[in-house]
Amino acid sequence: MGRMEPIKSLFEHALDTVRPVDSGETAQYIPELAVADPDPLAMAVTGPRGVVIGGGDDERTFTIQSISKPFVLALAMTRLGREEVLRRVGVEPSGEPFNAISLEPETGRPANPLVNAGAIATTALVPTEPDRDRVILDVLSSFAGRMLEVDEDVYRSESATGDRNRALAYLLRSHGVIGPDVTGIVESYFRQCSVLVTVRDLAVMAGTLAFGGRNPVTGQQVVSEHVARDVVSIMSSCGMYDFSGEWLLRVGLPAKSGVSGGIVAVVPAQFGVAVFSPRLDPRGNSTRGIQLLEMLSTEFGMHVFDLHDGSARPEIAVTRAPGEIAVRLDGELGFGGAEHVLATLDRIAETAAAGESIVLDASELSRANPSAMKAVLHALAALGDRGRLLS
Amino acid sequence: MGRMEPIKSLFEHALDTVRPVDSGETAQYIPELAVADPDPLAMAVTGPRGVVIGGGDDERTFTIQSISKPFVLALAMTRLGREEVLRRVGVEPSGEPFNAISLEPETGRPANPLVNAGAIATTALVPTEPDRDRVILDVLSSFAGRMLEVDEDVYRSESATGDRNRALAYLLRSHGVIGPDVTGIVESYFRQCSVLVTVRDLAVMAGTLAFGGRNPVTGQQVVSEHVARDVVSIMSSCGMYDFSGEWLLRVGLPAKSGVSGGIVAVVPAQFGVAVFSPRLDPRGNSTRGIQLLEMLSTEFGMHVFDLHDGSARPEIAVTRAPGEIAVRLDGELGFGGAEHVLATLDRIAETAAAGESIVLDASELSRANPSAMKAVLHALAALGDRGRLLS
Amino acid sequence: MGRMEPIKSLFEHALDTVRPVDSGETAQYIPELAVADPDPLAMAVTGPRGVVIGGGDDERTFTIQSISKPFVLALAMTRLGREEVLRRVGVEPSGEPFNAISLEPETGRPANPLVNAGAIATTALVPTEPDRDRVILDVLSSFAGRMLEVDEDVYRSESATGDRNRALAYLLRSHGVIGPDVTGIVESYFRQCSVLVTVRDLAVMAGTLAFGGRNPVTGQQVVSEHVARDVVSIMSSCGMYDFSGEWLLRVGLPAKSGVSGGIVAVVPAQFGVAVFSPRLDPRGNSTRGIQLLEMLSTEFGMHVFDLHDGSARPEIAVTRAPGEIAVRLDGELGFGGAEHVLATLDRIAETAAAGESIVLDASELSRANPSAMKAVLHALAALGDRGRLLS
Amino acid sequence: MGRMEPIKSLFEHALDTVRPVDSGETAQYIPELAVADPDPLAMAVTGPRGVVIGGGDDERTFTIQSISKPFVLALAMTRLGREEVLRRVGVEPSGEPFNAISLEPETGRPANPLVNAGAIATTALVPTEPDRDRVILDVLSSFAGRMLEVDEDVYRSESATGDRNRALAYLLRSHGVIGPDVTGIVESYFRQCSVLVTVRDLAVMAGTLAFGGRNPVTGQQVVSEHVARDVVSIMSSCGMYDFSGEWLLRVGLPAKSGVSGGIVAVVPAQFGVAVFSPRLDPRGNSTRGIQLLEMLSTEFGMHVFDLHDGSARPEIAVTRAPGEIAVRLDGELGFGGAEHVLATLDRIAETAAAGESIVLDASELSRANPSAMKAVLHALAALGDRGRLLS
Repeated sequence: MGRMEPIKSLFEHALDTVRPVDSGETAQYIPELAVADPDPLAMAVTGPRGVVIGGGDDERTFTIQSISKPFVLALAMTRLGREEVLRRVGVEPSGEPFNAISLEPETGRPANPLVNAGAIATTALVPTEPDRDRVILDVLSSFAGRMLEVDEDVYRSESATGDRNRALAYLLRSHGVIGPDVTGIVESYFRQCSVLVTVRDLAVMAGTLAFGGRNPVTGQQVVSEHVARDVVSIMSSCGMYDFSGEWLLRVGLPAKSGVSGGIVAVVPAQFGVAVFSPRLDPRGNSTRGIQLLEMLSTEFGMHVFDLHDGSARPEIAVTRAPGEIAVRLDGELGFGGAEHVLATLDRIAETAAAGESIVLDASELSRANPSAMKAVLHALAALGDRGRLLS
Repeated sequence: MGRMEPIKSLFEHALDTVRPVDSGETAQYIPELAVADPDPLAMAVTGPRGVVIGGGDDERTFTIQSISKPFVLALAMTRLGREEVLRRVGVEPSGEPFNAISLEPETGRPANPLVNAGAIATTALVPTEPDRDRVILDVLSSFAGRMLEVDEDVYRSESATGDRNRALAYLLRSHGVIGPDVTGIVESYFRQCSVLVTVRDLAVMAGTLAFGGRNPVTGQQVVSEHVARDVVSIMSSCGMYDFSGEWLLRVGLPAKSGVSGGIVAVVPAQFGVAVFSPRLDPRGNSTRGIQLLEMLSTEFGMHVFDLHDGSARPEIAVTRAPGEIAVRLDGELGFGGAEHVLATLDRIAETAAAGESIVLDASELSRANPSAMKAVLHALAALGDRGRLLS
Repeated sequence: MGRMEPIKSLFEHALDTVRPVDSGETAQYIPELAVADPDPLAMAVTGPRGVVIGGGDDERTFTIQSISKPFVLALAMTRLGREEVLRRVGVEPSGEPFNAISLEPETGRPANPLVNAGAIATTALVPTEPDRDRVILDVLSSFAGRMLEVDEDVYRSESATGDRNRALAYLLRSHGVIGPDVTGIVESYFRQCSVLVTVRDLAVMAGTLAFGGRNPVTGQQVVSEHVARDVVSIMSSCGMYDFSGEWLLRVGLPAKSGVSGGIVAVVPAQFGVAVFSPRLDPRGNSTRGIQLLEMLSTEFGMHVFDLHDGSARPEIAVTRAPGEIAVRLDGELGFGGAEHVLATLDRIAETAAAGESIVLDASELSRANPSAMKAVLHALAALGDRGRLLS
Repeated sequence: MGRMEPIKSLFEHALDTVRPVDSGETAQYIPELAVADPDPLAMAVTGPRGVVIGGGDDERTFTIQSISKPFVLALAMTRLGREEVLRRVGVEPSGEPFNAISLEPETGRPANPLVNAGAIATTALVPTEPDRDRVILDVLSSFAGRMLEVDEDVYRSESATGDRNRALAYLLRSHGVIGPDVTGIVESYFRQCSVLVTVRDLAVMAGTLAFGGRNPVTGQQVVSEHVARDVVSIMSSCGMYDFSGEWLLRVGLPAKSGVSGGIVAVVPAQFGVAVFSPRLDPRGNSTRGIQLLEMLSTEFGMHVFDLHDGSARPEIAVTRAPGEIAVRLDGELGFGGAEHVLATLDRIAETAAAGESIVLDASELSRANPSAMKAVLHALAALGDRGRLLS
């Protein structure tokens, strides 16, 4: 993984840029979250081949909170099919706070599965055999690629202060949207929110959505490509609450944030991304997390409506002359293509004879993502005297 | 253009499928639209090289109505920059009807530029030198690639019945969002809605957004790539009013509809698409237009969150043996790649000697879009005895 | 009570007028109410001296439902004082349905104590010593002047289907408006709604509010004059939900309806009125009940903003000449004054010698309520040959 | 009018109590009002016999603003009848600000005639023959009992900044609630708001509503008793915007405020009341005006749901013994009855012989309004040695 160093160093640079920001505060309405350490900062990215590159406090655990919602939605859609889920939950942005007490006038459907009311309605669709909590924990674990656990203290804290969610659940019950076991459903929802993850886990979970439901680390097809696309579509319109339109304009990534400070973002077919920083802005999104994702989207060209192919790999032609190995790049270099170029350089450097110099010819690139180019040059520089650029 | 026949015939098939649908009625609130012929049906698509393929009543003119909104937005963003426009208009879906009388409580901003209030605020940002109406007509014409005209009868009808829009304009004025020339602004807005277009014009206009602001027919860079991406992002969140979330889920195409029965849709980097059929559903969208676009998205794999690259072209290797030309496709065939394969087949057929047969080898395709494959086979079949498939 | 016959016959006439109306249906959302007999029809009025005049099915019992709300409000105001109650519940009409899930954004206060959310918050203010249910039943009984009971079947039915009210209660709890015993509070509320009353009971309860908190039958001062005035004021602005403004315009009586078909109305200082008929209009008010009260208000001049004093009693001068007793009325005769005139006529008729005729001289009345006059003439006619009018 | 001195001195005392309050500021959104002198303070009351008692700056003129609304409503109801007016304007409190842009979804009716939208719809109902402005000015003048005038500067200021009202008018037009002469209607509305009045004028106008449509000063029956009752009912539910319920609870007087600092209140059958002080609270009501009316209502027992008859006059028995005139009060003394007692004392004092003392016997009063008693004692004290109380 030495060849990932250039990308890792780009990440560290991004983390350093936002680290001094200390505005916002941790979520106050759940006692266990209110007293959380506000300072950790982390990010992680997973590419198509399952390599996870992390930075900062990427081993720190925290509770998943609302980020669980799209994944439990994927579970419900797998079990019941899209149309059956849509009979109980809408897919329109609500224009209201995440915990709004409002349902569609005639159907009683919550606005979408990513606000609390809709998430509770989604949890209610999870099979209770053998045990609803078990089924949810298993699927979240499959998305993450390792067995996850519930933080029992946070769970108890959520349950002790969760009267607004109970109100939502009884309201759903009164419209017949959920079954009679209101208490059981709400407690399952609190447990689902209390699952412990790291930002690396979240990157893998996001990656599983980005790569059509297939976990890029374990190779397991967790949900179908169709379900993954549906979930990504819904994250795109509703994932950032009443900031969703501006988010899509500025950042252009389907995403979902949680009140403990995490955010996941999906770059379809390219990356799963996750960030973590507990201080929240007034909308309830991680302040530094938002800034990191905006920076990543801009620098690495990840906006879904960018015309340039972020995963573009140039053609690489290697020619050997005495004392010199020439590596010529031709075509387009997207950010997602950097990994491929770095791997090639790495391999050549390992096999080069002593004294052989390596010349990189980028003059024929029709277009190069600046961050990708920076990573490639960084790798070249690491070769010391042996590396040289022709441009 | 003979080689486009297979695609054209796919379009005709789609048109035939929806033609019998006669539910819905023409817009009733503008007298000139209420009496319009409800029966025309048309569609058109523009690819990256500016070929426009149309079907049905694709030469019929109608007024552009709300479809003008994203294009005038592009004009305003070009003149003032994104942030300046956002100071006056939001970018969140409103969760309300297109003609809702509601502005952001504190700023007085309309919810987004694609509802009437936001569109009027956008029109007010157009320079009045030499003449606001002229500037708008010119930019719409640049998007369409030909000089457009206003239907003066429809304009007068709109103006005579436009009191709700006048109410919106005075409300905007009372918040200082627009300048004092309220009457002039509203009349410009009515004129902009009354510009005459065909479905072919709309396909080129949508294509100009799809290809980064560059008109694929005239080659003119009408707006910057950045502005085009912003407009496409906003169409994606707000283009289909309070149906936008479900539209993104099911169809997955940034789009905008108009009350005269047109809809434009953007397949980024691949196509501009337009449909036309005047009968509207209760939400005010063209009934058959919606069905056509859903069909196109599904059959041609155009959903923006589809993982497969819709524009994927296979590598084509042509080898000649005595009496036989072998055309081998390798890699992935997206719908957008079909045009390239058809062009190749076309060229080979023209240059083939008499008696030479043409063998298409698709056995090495890793993935093929079904509609693309259908078009290719259709072209092969048109060669009669000379064509043969190896699969 | 024979002298009340004329008034009783006016009531029977009013009941006969509305009896044929059969539009509307019984409340469907509580199973026990849905199957109630829809046909009973009754009314009752209580005057200042505690005489209850009833008509129709005035001995039939039904559950009090929302009519309990103003009386439990009176209890809470008595215990805590007006300001303390207002800290938890507003007094503005909500402009929303009675079971709306909406609280004041910052305080979490329900709009007013006569919608469900506000009534639950009010019930929560009742002391739990010795037992909340007991305290409520005792005060409702004091208002009615007899010991009331709960219908246990209806209570169980309400509890079994009361999830929307549970949602409201948990929402109130989440804002700290009610204490932690959410389940206990909601069950008390269901029991309070299930108390059995007759229309005669309701007339006495309304009368207790009309006469400054003093039960006109038992003479008990149930609540203070100040509390009674407050409750009547709140009924006036909020008692008929989003029909309150039109109700005050047309009928002009502070009132409160219940879903089982009862309505109470207060004519300050004059009458307590109650009607009962289970079929409800789309707003949830008794169809025939509304019609009866409109008729009473108009015919008997009960509108609170009528300038004429509804309780005006004329001066009565009785002079005896041989064979003739002259009864002269001077001044104003309001509807509330009829009882006094009737009592006088009754007494004179009883003490008149055989053969003595009774001459009523109404020529000096400056103003006479038509219904009051009708009742007086009816009483005179009952005297047969002995009675005569001089006008 | 010397005998009114005691009441006048009570008023001066009330004015002195609130005079030091200087919170709030003048209305800022109309330039001419923003620069108004914020300091004037005045009140006036008119009784049934047309005596106007004023205090403070009661000769100062200011523009009537929204206080014109109930009077133009009375005009419209007179011309068209209640039901015809109700077809175009509702009578429910809106739960929204006075200048809210919202109409009933299906009918397009404004919530009520006392919010701006409803007032414009009402002004549109005024006949245009000979001239709408003339008709309105005439009726306002009839209510006031003298010829009123428009402040042309304020009118121009309102018109120059009235775009929100223009928005409302075009919205009403778009629903067909008002006719096509939108500009004319709005200008008439601005003129109606710019009529100059004193607080004494307003007291007479309120008095005309209080006494069944009959101007107590001129004796003219300006509108029918029925229309006056309807207007008072609507003021009662909607007159104080989203403070109406609490106002009815605390003050209990149908009222209407204006943005220039005036408020009128109606004590049915007893008084017309008006106050004036330009500094407004955040709801847009005169800060000191509200306090004055609360004080008047409480001290003088004017709450409409007070059981005691505010206009109650005791029976007065005058007996003369040598050197002493005994005045015995028997029954109830309401605030409205004070004037009668004072007049009697006045007359006796004038006709008393030198050396004769006047003994007031209040020992038989069953109830006395404290302020009324204070006024009576004040008058007695003014007699010096000659006056004496027996209680």
